[in-house]
Amino acid sequence: MIRGVTRAGLGEIGSNEAYIRHAAEFGFQSVDLNPLELTGEYGTAGAAELLAHHGVIIGSFGLEADWRGSEDAFREGLPRLVQMAEAAAALGCTSCGTYILPATDLPAAPFMIAATRRLRLCADILGAYGISLGLEFVGPHHLRTQWANPTLWTMQDTLDWIDAIHVPHVGLLLDSYHWHTNGLTTSDLLALRPDQITFVHINDAKPLPIGELLDSDRLYPGEGAIDLTGFLRSLKHIGYTGVVAQEVLAPASGESSLELLARSKAGFDKLFQEL
Amino acid sequence: MIRGVTRAGLGEIGSNEAYIRHAAEFGFQSVDLNPLELTGEYGTAGAAELLAHHGVIIGSFGLEADWRGSEDAFREGLPRLVQMAEAAAALGCTSCGTYILPATDLPAAPFMIAATRRLRLCADILGAYGISLGLEFVGPHHLRTQWANPTLWTMQDTLDWIDAIHVPHVGLLLDSYHWHTNGLTTSDLLALRPDQITFVHINDAKPLPIGELLDSDRLYPGEGAIDLTGFLRSLKHIGYTGVVAQEVLAPASGESSLELLARSKAGFDKLFQEL
Amino acid sequence: MIRGVTRAGLGEIGSNEAYIRHAAEFGFQSVDLNPLELTGEYGTAGAAELLAHHGVIIGSFGLEADWRGSEDAFREGLPRLVQMAEAAAALGCTSCGTYILPATDLPAAPFMIAATRRLRLCADILGAYGISLGLEFVGPHHLRTQWANPTLWTMQDTLDWIDAIHVPHVGLLLDSYHWHTNGLTTSDLLALRPDQITFVHINDAKPLPIGELLDSDRLYPGEGAIDLTGFLRSLKHIGYTGVVAQEVLAPASGESSLELLARSKAGFDKLFQEL
Amino acid sequence: MIRGVTRAGLGEIGSNEAYIRHAAEFGFQSVDLNPLELTGEYGTAGAAELLAHHGVIIGSFGLEADWRGSEDAFREGLPRLVQMAEAAAALGCTSCGTYILPATDLPAAPFMIAATRRLRLCADILGAYGISLGLEFVGPHHLRTQWANPTLWTMQDTLDWIDAIHVPHVGLLLDSYHWHTNGLTTSDLLALRPDQITFVHINDAKPLPIGELLDSDRLYPGEGAIDLTGFLRSLKHIGYTGVVAQEVLAPASGESSLELLARSKAGFDKLFQEL
Repeated sequence: MIRGVTRAGLGEIGSNEAYIRHAAEFGFQSVDLNPLELTGEYGTAGAAELLAHHGVIIGSFGLEADWRGSEDAFREGLPRLVQMAEAAAALGCTSCGTYILPATDLPAAPFMIAATRRLRLCADILGAYGISLGLEFVGPHHLRTQWANPTLWTMQDTLDWIDAIHVPHVGLLLDSYHWHTNGLTTSDLLALRPDQITFVHINDAKPLPIGELLDSDRLYPGEGAIDLTGFLRSLKHIGYTGVVAQEVLAPASGESSLELLARSKAGFDKLFQEL
Repeated sequence: MIRGVTRAGLGEIGSNEAYIRHAAEFGFQSVDLNPLELTGEYGTAGAAELLAHHGVIIGSFGLEADWRGSEDAFREGLPRLVQMAEAAAALGCTSCGTYILPATDLPAAPFMIAATRRLRLCADILGAYGISLGLEFVGPHHLRTQWANPTLWTMQDTLDWIDAIHVPHVGLLLDSYHWHTNGLTTSDLLALRPDQITFVHINDAKPLPIGELLDSDRLYPGEGAIDLTGFLRSLKHIGYTGVVAQEVLAPASGESSLELLARSKAGFDKLFQEL
Repeated sequence: MIRGVTRAGLGEIGSNEAYIRHAAEFGFQSVDLNPLELTGEYGTAGAAELLAHHGVIIGSFGLEADWRGSEDAFREGLPRLVQMAEAAAALGCTSCGTYILPATDLPAAPFMIAATRRLRLCADILGAYGISLGLEFVGPHHLRTQWANPTLWTMQDTLDWIDAIHVPHVGLLLDSYHWHTNGLTTSDLLALRPDQITFVHINDAKPLPIGELLDSDRLYPGEGAIDLTGFLRSLKHIGYTGVVAQEVLAPASGESSLELLARSKAGFDKLFQEL
Repeated sequence: MIRGVTRAGLGEIGSNEAYIRHAAEFGFQSVDLNPLELTGEYGTAGAAELLAHHGVIIGSFGLEADWRGSEDAFREGLPRLVQMAEAAAALGCTSCGTYILPATDLPAAPFMIAATRRLRLCADILGAYGISLGLEFVGPHHLRTQWANPTLWTMQDTLDWIDAIHVPHVGLLLDSYHWHTNGLTTSDLLALRPDQITFVHINDAKPLPIGELLDSDRLYPGEGAIDLTGFLRSLKHIGYTGVVAQEVLAPASGESSLELLARSKAGFDKLFQEL
């Protein structure tokens, strides 16, 4: 498995160049960033060169196309989606992700209808560039009632949705926090095939009942209550060989980016040592 | 447009043979019935002969595969679905229909996920036999709260769902009662293309506010408050040339089947004369 | 049916503005042109205004994405396809077309595999903007052996391909020349549903055996041997209400564009009078 | 990886019961057989019991639906396909396979069109029962010219076709003989993801130039010229954990089934020891 970071949990690390450089310095092999932004800054060749120079890949990028709102908003995002897929493919990135909010203020059934159609099209556009789309189920309980109508938040419902979207190259974006807050266990992971997982997020949780955990109050990997060793061992066992990227959504800690990277590295070192 | 009947509104008309014979006697050109039952009774050649002898086609048949419940129940219906499609195709029937309840006791989002996948497979199996699948939105307001979670009941949501199912040969099963209880007008029909409609049900409504109309208390075509002339003229105007089949869901009237057929014929005569 | 023109058969008519203006002057209600080029020249609002001022719509535009060659070439065309679909939708155009060469120098099976996948994606992107994709079978016999391996040229094979592509909003781009050179008759048209046709090209043929007719040696509608009255009557009969656009691929005639428009108008007047 | 056999290479081993019993006796964990035949003989519970008693699973079964010929023939096979999928699922079998002949007497493009549509439907029906469909490319050169028009025989073309079929749960049925006769190497296997392989056939080849190898003249695993150790090591390396089933298409050897099973076991023992 490949050690990765996202900007979430690294403070104000600055430019993409600084982000890539520092990630590499601390042993990370993958960064999540906007590939179109990077090719905009450096050109495609320059961006590829920058990544190669630091021995870092782009692990994944976020699906910007707005599949949750109006049809106009969705359409407006399609030209940029194609451009971003093109940029990502040119830089060797093969993963794009989006999260599923567990509730919506829109009526649930029409929301699912539109979302199914739109995510299929996004997946097919990405697929034309060899990029998989990962759907991230979101576990924290407080979000399930934050909007009027529940959608879905379980791994099984997400797998069922992937089957209903019914095109190749759609899988789970699996996040340890959502696994934990869903009350899932290692046996749920061991039941997966590796191709069902497009990307993995890792972060930790406070030692609270899972019903009380907040989405934006996460801990660094290895500093909390989640059985991350079991999580990673299970993924390794089923044959997952992709990126495991830290994504710590949490209030600012006051530490510098380099301090946070060192802390992240320590967590990864400990966890990966136990695999 | 082709004049059709279903058994709903004809009382206890008896065997399929009696049903077909009497429908023909009263000028109907199409009957809705179970094609597999008919070929079971008469053999394929005999069933075709019986229909041809009376100059009647099978307008449509109901999708028996249970797409609303458990996965096991759905799977169990697939062998019969294939056999029924085979029987229907052998008898020249090209339309199959199913209705969408406007609410469900299952969570709405997972329900829509499973339903989307299942209806797509049903449509593809039917499509292999040249049969279209019609989805019938259901308008009566009381049904929207009869189960815990709303699904959909509007024509537009149904069209969106058809697009999300995203295979050829899926369209609307359009029923005048549901059109009326949704508060739709002729302009909504005039905005359709004929290929978006796989089948049409016709029946009438009591002169009550649409919010008070009950699903199982319908009237015979031409005896109620629905603008059926506008309904049919609009369908004709957009080029719909398929079956318009009476489906009167109502308490038993006490009249004989022949009296009810005569009454139905009178309604159709009046309405079709005005086209 | 809507009278339309393409630039093929109008000589050097000049700018898009001149093309639109002159087409309107001669009673044509539709022009085929590149919507992205037009919005580039006039802005979206300006282009819409120009068309509205002359009472002309954009009938169809050509699919520029190169689905016949390398995967790289195909991908490179996708950003522009999305932009063109966006421009077309903003101008109210709902039809895009591409032709199928009856042979290829690539091995036929892998060619069909790639083409099926690519055309499906193009259709789905166009479909997100409410645009249908028309596939034009190409009849002239000399083209069937112009490249090493035959693909397809019949209407039935094209309909089968549309079914295999298996997404909504794909239909026939039907051209009278290809209908004629395939030896098809009005009964073949009468067997179609209108939704199976996304667009119609009209032009005429020299009074030669169909095996000798050249693709680039066509005549103006009404000046040749094709039974265009039967062709149009059949389309009208089945309920086709879309554009019928002249496309005369022929050597330069020496006449001015205005002379050619007058000649075209005369042909249309005669043919449409007989409907 | 799971050691499996098919009947090909075991002589006249007799009833399904004998086949299962003897396979188990010689250490094989999987047999390929017709699940519908087995449930027909023993009932579903009895068949499951028989397999469980011997510690043997059904590895895969053949797709009987005739996707290569007429539409009527294809349709006629669908009821049985659904029944077979049902029987297979009830017995825990998750793999079905079919081979692709490298040429056809039908025109290649229409053949691919029909085949793409039909295999998609078969895959979707199988998928409803949790069964994957494996497509087996066929390498021997002599078959490429045995019929008039080439289709495909390479692994890459097969992967492209799987992408064009474009539904989940379709993969490669990978056969060592076809890998060898295509001139493929271990690096071609190492480039695969395990989910791209639904099933593996193993058998060996005479020490002849690959262009001279006949499809029906294969050797037992480990007795010929194919680098089967490299083949299996590569599959293990990428994380393939499914069945590797012997399929020796060869003239009758004169040996008894038990002798052939012993010979097969010896080959497997040697090869699996080296992994």
